[in-house]
Amino acid sequence: MTEAITGRPVMRYREGVEELVDSLVVEEPLEIRLDGTSLAVVMRSPGNDTDLALGFALTEGIIDRPGDVSAVTELGEGRLNIELAEGVSVDPSLFQRNFYSTSSCGVCGKASIDAIRVAGALPPAGPVVDRAVLLSLPEKLLELQDAFSSTGGLHAAAAFDATGEVLAVREDIGRHNATDKLIGHLAGRDWPLPSLGLLVSGRVSFEITQKAAVAGISLVCGISAASSLAVDLAEELGMTVVGFLRKGGFTLYAGSERLGVAEG
Amino acid sequence: MTEAITGRPVMRYREGVEELVDSLVVEEPLEIRLDGTSLAVVMRSPGNDTDLALGFALTEGIIDRPGDVSAVTELGEGRLNIELAEGVSVDPSLFQRNFYSTSSCGVCGKASIDAIRVAGALPPAGPVVDRAVLLSLPEKLLELQDAFSSTGGLHAAAAFDATGEVLAVREDIGRHNATDKLIGHLAGRDWPLPSLGLLVSGRVSFEITQKAAVAGISLVCGISAASSLAVDLAEELGMTVVGFLRKGGFTLYAGSERLGVAEG
Repeated sequence: MTEAITGRPVMRYREGVEELVDSLVVEEPLEIRLDGTSLAVVMRSPGNDTDLALGFALTEGIIDRPGDVSAVTELGEGRLNIELAEGVSVDPSLFQRNFYSTSSCGVCGKASIDAIRVAGALPPAGPVVDRAVLLSLPEKLLELQDAFSSTGGLHAAAAFDATGEVLAVREDIGRHNATDKLIGHLAGRDWPLPSLGLLVSGRVSFEITQKAAVAGISLVCGISAASSLAVDLAEELGMTVVGFLRKGGFTLYAGSERLGVAEG
Repeated sequence: MTEAITGRPVMRYREGVEELVDSLVVEEPLEIRLDGTSLAVVMRSPGNDTDLALGFALTEGIIDRPGDVSAVTELGEGRLNIELAEGVSVDPSLFQRNFYSTSSCGVCGKASIDAIRVAGALPPAGPVVDRAVLLSLPEKLLELQDAFSSTGGLHAAAAFDATGEVLAVREDIGRHNATDKLIGHLAGRDWPLPSLGLLVSGRVSFEITQKAAVAGISLVCGISAASSLAVDLAEELGMTVVGFLRKGGFTLYAGSERLGVAEG
């Protein structure tokens, strides 16, 4: 599964700072077509794409059995076509009915990055945060999470300022929902989003980074890993991405200009 | 955030078995409308729904600023309407363009459960697995995961049989994709899916449980928590859901008939 992983230069902060090439999970859009008609675009790790398409069509009830498919053909450029076997037809209303929208990008990551750049949504500024401030955040997040400790099943998204004060935390079974709840809460109250950083309780995905960018937040931190497309987006837009923010250290994937010099 | 948590009777297996009422995260669909037209259905934890709708509309680029919205009104039954301010209009093509489909249910969990029940996709059988077999699975999964250890960013889905043999593992940045890749792999090779169990590296969500059900897999295990809607679905269809399968124990949420009597 080597194509699911990519090497990137990062800086790892622990006692000191270490520059190294780290492994990132690759996140890329795949458009699944059915007899030429676009069925869905999924953000996925590359690899086993024909299995993904077949499994998707089966588990979403688009087809009833593997034999309904005569071939799954890679079209290149992140596109793939499912050909139905002779005599098999699919109710077109399934295309509308079976998929609910998740909060995300657009037809593909690149198109979405372009859309953001054109909109100029992201300010070049954003907070500058000292290392000690970053390191103080995970514990604060845990303390503020109402539900996490009792079920272990909720993601959290928190907004913090340059002094490390956590202004709001929102939780949800979906990380993207927690982020939307947080941004909706702050936006509805006229908070100066560009002066804030975002901390999520899990991974920094493309989706989370894009939501932050659109909201004007240029510093995104996660307790777990960052994906390749999240880092691509951050580099493109001049954002800062911090991952593995836990146990007294973190990994800086992009945007060192928002890390303060004080060692704290 | 009490509405995001619900109590359910479960059985916790550690040294012995303990019956207790456990806390589960609630997962429910929310339909977001824009001036009366359906914009998206998101699976979310209830609570802060108007913030969620506002944040969603902002971070998906549907609106440019909070002032574009005059009100967000709860319509009841998991529906909510965003009213645009006077003079604000939204490009209808954004409705198509901005949301990619994720692999999931349908307009709502209940409708989807009905659809599965009518289709009768799920056999009443499924494997019966001894406790020792379940307990052996997390370590096998970790050993088989190619990428997890080097990045910490990939989810895994594995299929195992009643003897605890892991037949295939697939990884992806999305748990639902890993599950689709696994099911597509097995389905394309005529594996007897109803004789197998599914193990996912994270939470057992509604989405994962539904995919398993449609594929005919009635035993679903996760390393982390199960959601309320996943357990509802399992109970409705006679499936078995096991969560927190780690550190020598697990929690049985539904379907004890698939747990063997041998203590191993």
